[in-house]
Amino acid sequence: MGRRHRDALFPRAAIDRLTRHVDIDPRFVAETFETVPEPAAVELLITSWGCAPLDAAALARMSGLKAVVHAAGSVKHHVTEACWDRDIRVSTAAAANAVPVAEYTLAAILFANKRVREISGLYREHREALDWAAYYPGFGNYRRTIGLVGASLVGRRVLELLRPHDFDVLLADPHLDPAEARSMGARLVGLDEMLAVCDVVSLHAPALPETHHLLDARRLSLLRDGATLVNTGRGSLVDTDALTAEASSGRVHAVLDVTEPEVLPATSPLYSLPNVLLTPHIAGSLGGELQRITRSALEEVERYCAGEEFAHAVTRAALTTSA
Amino acid sequence: MGRRHRDALFPRAAIDRLTRHVDIDPRFVAETFETVPEPAAVELLITSWGCAPLDAAALARMSGLKAVVHAAGSVKHHVTEACWDRDIRVSTAAAANAVPVAEYTLAAILFANKRVREISGLYREHREALDWAAYYPGFGNYRRTIGLVGASLVGRRVLELLRPHDFDVLLADPHLDPAEARSMGARLVGLDEMLAVCDVVSLHAPALPETHHLLDARRLSLLRDGATLVNTGRGSLVDTDALTAEASSGRVHAVLDVTEPEVLPATSPLYSLPNVLLTPHIAGSLGGELQRITRSALEEVERYCAGEEFAHAVTRAALTTSA
Repeated sequence: MGRRHRDALFPRAAIDRLTRHVDIDPRFVAETFETVPEPAAVELLITSWGCAPLDAAALARMSGLKAVVHAAGSVKHHVTEACWDRDIRVSTAAAANAVPVAEYTLAAILFANKRVREISGLYREHREALDWAAYYPGFGNYRRTIGLVGASLVGRRVLELLRPHDFDVLLADPHLDPAEARSMGARLVGLDEMLAVCDVVSLHAPALPETHHLLDARRLSLLRDGATLVNTGRGSLVDTDALTAEASSGRVHAVLDVTEPEVLPATSPLYSLPNVLLTPHIAGSLGGELQRITRSALEEVERYCAGEEFAHAVTRAALTTSA
Repeated sequence: MGRRHRDALFPRAAIDRLTRHVDIDPRFVAETFETVPEPAAVELLITSWGCAPLDAAALARMSGLKAVVHAAGSVKHHVTEACWDRDIRVSTAAAANAVPVAEYTLAAILFANKRVREISGLYREHREALDWAAYYPGFGNYRRTIGLVGASLVGRRVLELLRPHDFDVLLADPHLDPAEARSMGARLVGLDEMLAVCDVVSLHAPALPETHHLLDARRLSLLRDGATLVNTGRGSLVDTDALTAEASSGRVHAVLDVTEPEVLPATSPLYSLPNVLLTPHIAGSLGGELQRITRSALEEVERYCAGEEFAHAVTRAALTTSA
């Protein structure tokens, strides 16, 4: 991992905890595999953002490697087919990383239904008491219909967090059957149907070739007038030009933490539309939230050392349908 | 209640449901008690925002009045000592009204810890990827300390909604003992101690003479650098000038749905500070959320007609310490 990530994720206390279980040089961090001093002696790698691909050449040097504990979300960038071919055990902190994304999404949904951003802007503009219900008839968080696209780790966590609220929750996911969705407290629907009936649609699908521009101009046009699109997933899920047109007209509201491209061009109207909340990919673990990732990774290392299974194992098969 | 509130709270379907249980003129709404056609025949009043005080004169005319079902929050503006002297039963929809306030507060806390408003503003200003953790070291929603001032209906609901998150929750309330606080999942502390240790402090105390400017200049100065004050309670709880000074310096962040005065003067810096989210008293029931109030009131009327106790009875004693 990058040294910056090592410093943020593994402060002294975390390294101290590691040294109680494993033989580790507390000062060393490999930014490339070429720098590992005794590669054949490496049994377990702790990886994070910025890890180079664990390709055949790297694996050939680390001939004793048995496990990879990823202190971040997706392992797709560095866990290659060669790792699976060698039966290397892989663990991820994706569940820990899903927590802040789900929290951001929950807050985004509650504030979107309440039109907090829009009304705050109108109040700043007019500086008087206006009839907000006349601006946004029927707004608020009572008996609204929320659509979640993708029963990913984040999508499932959002579902749980929505439970205390008065929402009807729909779920669209091609890999789920209706009984599974019901057991999660949601109703499985097709994506087109979801878009046509929801007050908020939130994207939690992985970036895969088949999800590229999943929300294209046609699908975005299916959204109800006044609906809000929340994207804390991946920018590539949405046709940015088509969304910009829908949001610029005021027909659709949006909360966007990820975009395509990222950063958006400086000329993008999305920066300043009153009905769009735009943040620069901050929903995931940042600041103090990195400690949750650290704790998850340390616990996985401790399970490995105790001869236990990983609690958050990644399989080759699961990677084809997840982030 | 005002005709506008009647139309919003009691649409046709609600009136139809009422007429199945009570003898009511479906078109009539009393904006003052003088207009009630057969006052002595009135057994139950359904009241809401804008209700005139039920004083001795009004009660003398409504000699058969036995119960008041308030389709809104506080009954303090219209339920007088004369009502209690006559043992009139009083019910409130304050619990239903607490739900949206608690939801707004939850979203405000999650977004405040994540610095969503501030980072969104910085992203709009700079239109590039910056190191947000350098701007806001340790930010995020992991292991933060949240202080709730007042174990009111809203305060208790916020406590429940905070439970799934990684927070340490402190509670300040002069009417609570430590065991009660613990049973709610919080630790009882004094207000000054709370202010000194919390990342977010959220106000849920009633507006009483003894809570006027509860957060004065001295108490606000106790807040940690970078702490966020959330006020969805009552504007009078906070010394606005002192808060304006703390927020203008950038030392303290704030989410304010209520202020003193309401509306703020057009010259108030609070309208445009990057570290202040200001909304015009919208956290309570608005738009579709009024239907939750309606349902609560209808259920109370049905309980009354069935000879049952109110589920949300108000007592004279409780009013001295609540909103």
